[in-house]
Amino acid sequence: MSPEERRLIDALRADEARIAELFERYLEPSRDVEGVTRPSWGEVEEQGLTMFDALCRELGLEVERDEVGQLFATLPGTERHLPGIVIGSHFDSVRRGGHYDGYAGVVTAFATVAALAAAGLRPKRDITLIGMRGEESPWWGIAYVGSRFTTGDLGRAEIEGLRRIDTGRSFVEHLRMLGYDAEAALARAGTPRITGQNTRAYMELHIEQGPVLENAGVSVAAATAIRGNVRFPEVICRGVWSHASATPYEYRFDTVLAVAEVLHRFDLWWQAQLEAGHVDQVLTIGRIHTDADREAMTIIAGECRFAFNFGSTDQAHIDAAIAELQRLMDEVGARKRVGFTLGRQAGSRPEPLDEGLRAGLAAAARDLGQEMMEFAAGGHDAGMFAKAGIPSALVFVRNQNGSHNPDEAMEMPHFHEATRVYALTAWRLANEV
Amino acid sequence: MSPEERRLIDALRADEARIAELFERYLEPSRDVEGVTRPSWGEVEEQGLTMFDALCRELGLEVERDEVGQLFATLPGTERHLPGIVIGSHFDSVRRGGHYDGYAGVVTAFATVAALAAAGLRPKRDITLIGMRGEESPWWGIAYVGSRFTTGDLGRAEIEGLRRIDTGRSFVEHLRMLGYDAEAALARAGTPRITGQNTRAYMELHIEQGPVLENAGVSVAAATAIRGNVRFPEVICRGVWSHASATPYEYRFDTVLAVAEVLHRFDLWWQAQLEAGHVDQVLTIGRIHTDADREAMTIIAGECRFAFNFGSTDQAHIDAAIAELQRLMDEVGARKRVGFTLGRQAGSRPEPLDEGLRAGLAAAARDLGQEMMEFAAGGHDAGMFAKAGIPSALVFVRNQNGSHNPDEAMEMPHFHEATRVYALTAWRLANEV
Repeated sequence: MSPEERRLIDALRADEARIAELFERYLEPSRDVEGVTRPSWGEVEEQGLTMFDALCRELGLEVERDEVGQLFATLPGTERHLPGIVIGSHFDSVRRGGHYDGYAGVVTAFATVAALAAAGLRPKRDITLIGMRGEESPWWGIAYVGSRFTTGDLGRAEIEGLRRIDTGRSFVEHLRMLGYDAEAALARAGTPRITGQNTRAYMELHIEQGPVLENAGVSVAAATAIRGNVRFPEVICRGVWSHASATPYEYRFDTVLAVAEVLHRFDLWWQAQLEAGHVDQVLTIGRIHTDADREAMTIIAGECRFAFNFGSTDQAHIDAAIAELQRLMDEVGARKRVGFTLGRQAGSRPEPLDEGLRAGLAAAARDLGQEMMEFAAGGHDAGMFAKAGIPSALVFVRNQNGSHNPDEAMEMPHFHEATRVYALTAWRLANEV
Repeated sequence: MSPEERRLIDALRADEARIAELFERYLEPSRDVEGVTRPSWGEVEEQGLTMFDALCRELGLEVERDEVGQLFATLPGTERHLPGIVIGSHFDSVRRGGHYDGYAGVVTAFATVAALAAAGLRPKRDITLIGMRGEESPWWGIAYVGSRFTTGDLGRAEIEGLRRIDTGRSFVEHLRMLGYDAEAALARAGTPRITGQNTRAYMELHIEQGPVLENAGVSVAAATAIRGNVRFPEVICRGVWSHASATPYEYRFDTVLAVAEVLHRFDLWWQAQLEAGHVDQVLTIGRIHTDADREAMTIIAGECRFAFNFGSTDQAHIDAAIAELQRLMDEVGARKRVGFTLGRQAGSRPEPLDEGLRAGLAAAARDLGQEMMEFAAGGHDAGMFAKAGIPSALVFVRNQNGSHNPDEAMEMPHFHEATRVYALTAWRLANEV
């Protein structure tokens, strides 16, 4: 490592206590009955942005808020004509989620610029901290609202149609409620702020949402790709409600047993794929329900709904999964005399992450004597930047108990280790010419 | 047919319009948002009992109400020392159920005694109309409350423990609310009013709850047996809630896919049983649910619950089903790293119905030129009487659209045809010596 790099690392180490305190500071306002809840374009998320707006101004950064209230705080480089480095993550959380999903990535980015400022280090390229909103999907029915806005992927019509699924209140109303100029946001929609032309790299740190690092005892990983997926949020199987005991087999139109067959046989197909070496595939049926208003132990269920979610880093595997699901539904539906409706289809294409950035992370980890793993990731804002043609990296930090639940448990020593790898890589990128 | 029998049939025919009107009269007070709702030991059920109490007094019958408000209306025989004939059914319905389940059996019994009274026919044995309560299970968590009370099968402790599952209000409170002497009911509990000693036969008419008669175009059937069953109202599968995309296969503890495998493989076992000729088996998974408070399309479900219900006329098949379910849960649970808890077990043993009574019904149908089918039945009050050692018969009347739903559609001509078979059989039984 160069003397400047050592100064950066020393500054990071010196600031660890204050950085840890930033985690404490945002916890109390976010608490729900259990875990934390930071609705996208809600008050708690806004509070986080306000807090970091002030913190970045204290550092002397160039602070701006975009039309939807996202934070852009720039440490100016010495060669500002060069495409900059964007680092950050999102403030919002799922309902009753954990404290670290999203927020850890904001804090890491802040720790990076704060250490550079403290060490008096000025990079060649601008380094911009981005504090985003609306990465999580629960409230708006679509994910990555903030990063899609930033990369110009979210058009005016789509914004105008956004409603909170719980309250029905529009996105535009939320903007106004928080004091933003909704007309300006609508006018900006579709025009990117961050592009492959003005940005050299996007880097995001995120807690690992699975157990791989925890089980391996390793603090940090680089994601190889963002998995794509296909999602059918509400597949409906319709049959006939009828009496459990009085209806002979040949008159039964049983949706639960039809759904069970489709799901189990799809599960077997998936396992065969895994055994064939296509290990980067994940199948999740997160929701299954008979109709609570009509169901009974003594009634054959005339309706059963479930959510289908299949992810892979290979679009061909996603396409094959859709075909297999359809084939099973057709076959089972015909034999069991029930109808399947796939309903709305959502999802995203896989996005490979930049190999150069991964090599940079690996080199930084090596120079810091830090072991680093590599594996594929689920959806994150980084995927939206990669999709927009911006070389992107996603760094995972070790975390216990998964994510999207109150029990997320990232430990601070692991966070600091990952932050050092992240900040060193960002610094090096910002000095490339 | 004898001249007396012809007078009975003529009297039934003459009274058809008024009998049809009895269906109208009870419909309006029972209406819910859709269908009818007559909660057991609730106001609407009480109203039905009050109505028939008055109607039976008008006929000159000996009318009594038992300790829990059930109606006993006796047409005295000429040889009252002989064990009597008990005919009837229940007033209560499921929530938002149909108009005919239960009530049709009360009306048939009334039509029988009314025609005998109108024709001036006096049987040798007493014929007692019984109007029962609480046959349906939704409100009390157990079925056949009234017939179990009547046959002495419901003990004091069990009565004292009964709570309405929706309101938590006790059975004892309900009795008091309706003006009954709860202490007398508790004192009576466990002591049968109807026994194999004092009763020659119990006869019940019920709408068919399946589609067999409707599809065959036949108005009436005699049940061969009451199916027994095993029920696990809430089987719970527990795994681990975790992130849909970030959790690799080897760290997934997915309850939905485990439940799907158990259910589909049990379904295959059942189909093999049917193909082996054990056609009198019914499998129903009426309810399946992930946890609405925690589930999401993007989260592996750490919990999935379902209701299991398997019926057969052969206890050996029921026992085999329980063993098969347990075997599948053990095997799938171990492989998929989830735990299954069967939870509370309910159910009943199969009850064969009296062959002599079935022969009597067949003879009456033949004498009336009426085609009659035979098949097994699900659970009904008749099963409780059979279990108590009282020769019992269950007559099905053709009905459309199944049962336990708002669309039950028994047609009056089919009802009248079935009533003639029923009444003639009752009359003949009452004159046996």
